[in-house]
Amino acid sequence: MMFFEGSEKKVEAVLKPGHESLRALGKPFWENLVAQANATILSSVHNDRCDAYLLSESSLFVWDDRFLMLTCGTTTLVQAVTEFLKHFSQNELAMLTYQRKNEYQSHLQKSSFDEDLVALSGLLPGTAWRLGHLDGHHNYIFHSEAAYQPDADDATAELLMYHIQGQAADYLRSPSQTLEGVRALFNWQGMLPDFQFDDFLFEPFGYSMNGIRGDRYVTVHITPQEDSSYVSFETNLDKAELGPVLDQLLRLLQPQSYDVISFNLATKLAHQGGVVRVDQAEQRLPIGYTMRFEHFMVPPKAPLSATRL
Amino acid sequence: MMFFEGSEKKVEAVLKPGHESLRALGKPFWENLVAQANATILSSVHNDRCDAYLLSESSLFVWDDRFLMLTCGTTTLVQAVTEFLKHFSQNELAMLTYQRKNEYQSHLQKSSFDEDLVALSGLLPGTAWRLGHLDGHHNYIFHSEAAYQPDADDATAELLMYHIQGQAADYLRSPSQTLEGVRALFNWQGMLPDFQFDDFLFEPFGYSMNGIRGDRYVTVHITPQEDSSYVSFETNLDKAELGPVLDQLLRLLQPQSYDVISFNLATKLAHQGGVVRVDQAEQRLPIGYTMRFEHFMVPPKAPLSATRL
Repeated sequence: MMFFEGSEKKVEAVLKPGHESLRALGKPFWENLVAQANATILSSVHNDRCDAYLLSESSLFVWDDRFLMLTCGTTTLVQAVTEFLKHFSQNELAMLTYQRKNEYQSHLQKSSFDEDLVALSGLLPGTAWRLGHLDGHHNYIFHSEAAYQPDADDATAELLMYHIQGQAADYLRSPSQTLEGVRALFNWQGMLPDFQFDDFLFEPFGYSMNGIRGDRYVTVHITPQEDSSYVSFETNLDKAELGPVLDQLLRLLQPQSYDVISFNLATKLAHQGGVVRVDQAEQRLPIGYTMRFEHFMVPPKAPLSATRL
Repeated sequence: MMFFEGSEKKVEAVLKPGHESLRALGKPFWENLVAQANATILSSVHNDRCDAYLLSESSLFVWDDRFLMLTCGTTTLVQAVTEFLKHFSQNELAMLTYQRKNEYQSHLQKSSFDEDLVALSGLLPGTAWRLGHLDGHHNYIFHSEAAYQPDADDATAELLMYHIQGQAADYLRSPSQTLEGVRALFNWQGMLPDFQFDDFLFEPFGYSMNGIRGDRYVTVHITPQEDSSYVSFETNLDKAELGPVLDQLLRLLQPQSYDVISFNLATKLAHQGGVVRVDQAEQRLPIGYTMRFEHFMVPPKAPLSATRL
């Protein structure tokens, strides 16, 4: 059975005010950072606030004072973070977070979160947490220790969808899919007006999209493989714009299991009938973010068949 | 945080009729097999049908025509199976199954199920299945290919409990616990009349119990550690006796998540209020067993705090 670990690792770092712009570091700096994670830059879009890079495994967004990088598969994002910390000292850094989700097959990863934690803690004083039970979906986060106060509009949300079903899922798994077909399926322009998009269709399956509008971003990564499908959506859209987008993604992709993770944002979704919130956690992090984690499932109505290996 | 992987791997093998008794192989044979898995024999009880060994990591039961071995932690049960297959050819073997559950921390295991499968398939033609979704609780089984017809009373059930709560759980985690205290807590004699018991209290926590009555067995293994607690109960008790025992264990241990796995037995439990069956699978295996898997959860009523690592 074809398997690809869609689940992403994620780093976000913010520099202290008055520091030289991260965008001014230029593409070679970011190419090197991405290479540390075992990924490469495929393409990019730019506006006057943000450089958005589409990677061979997920995405990188660079603003003047911060960057955000997500990588999936068996990438080694922690090595990109340690590389970044060689260039920027604790005195220059306002805040850093490093997140990992539960993986479908964690034993295939190059390192565990515990091992990443050892590497990061040696370079930067910090604290780590797990939201969600260890035997179910969960999310790990490491964050820098120093006091930090996020801006009022610094709020992000992640919708992580597992076991997608229905016509859209079938299309995303079909050998006849095209880039135009996937775009039409989601209708990004209609869903996210005035965004500038950059997307890529992988062979034989898989799709990634970055979108930016001013300092707002969206990023979507699709691993459609039957038995281990995974679609992630992450954004810093404000609450009013966010709700309809998340609802539309849920309607379209019909995931049998999904997580909602948010920072300084309480989401309210239009869950379909039969959905159960099986786990929920909330933690006020000492760096000024309230982190929320919710895991939803749609229990099967009748016993499923086993999967033959 | 103290972590021990309670989740067991399991092998069951049946010899063809007319073969010399497995019990006649003697303790050194079984000591060697147990050593292959990186476990040791702690104690044993015997009756005229069965030898039951309590292991440093779980249990071994030997009958004339079959044996059953469970091992937890980071044991290498697959190596015990490959050792067994050096002594018994396909022609002598009526049936063999090898099972693995999802682990709390699969990346700490010495091998994955996929790797075990490669080792086993090289020695014995067989088929492997997974019941339950890959991102949630699930159970893997490999079984031999040859046609097999189980006896009418060959039915087994496993109750696997996660995140135990309440007074019993508190006692099982308390430094002041005693072997007598644990026995009194469960009242094995009352729960399982006429069984002969053998049990062991580990330092600083953890408890194992084997019980036999004729050719019937029960085995209980408790890993009480907060954040990753796990209690397994497995038996070939008949349906009438089984129901009240499972219900009593659920009432006593109040697991927040549990699996029921059965072979040729449809269980019906008295689930407490608020319990949701979040996954279920059923598969008719070509060796004459219908295998059932159910995962139940008790969703938290309010957000939980994060676990600080």
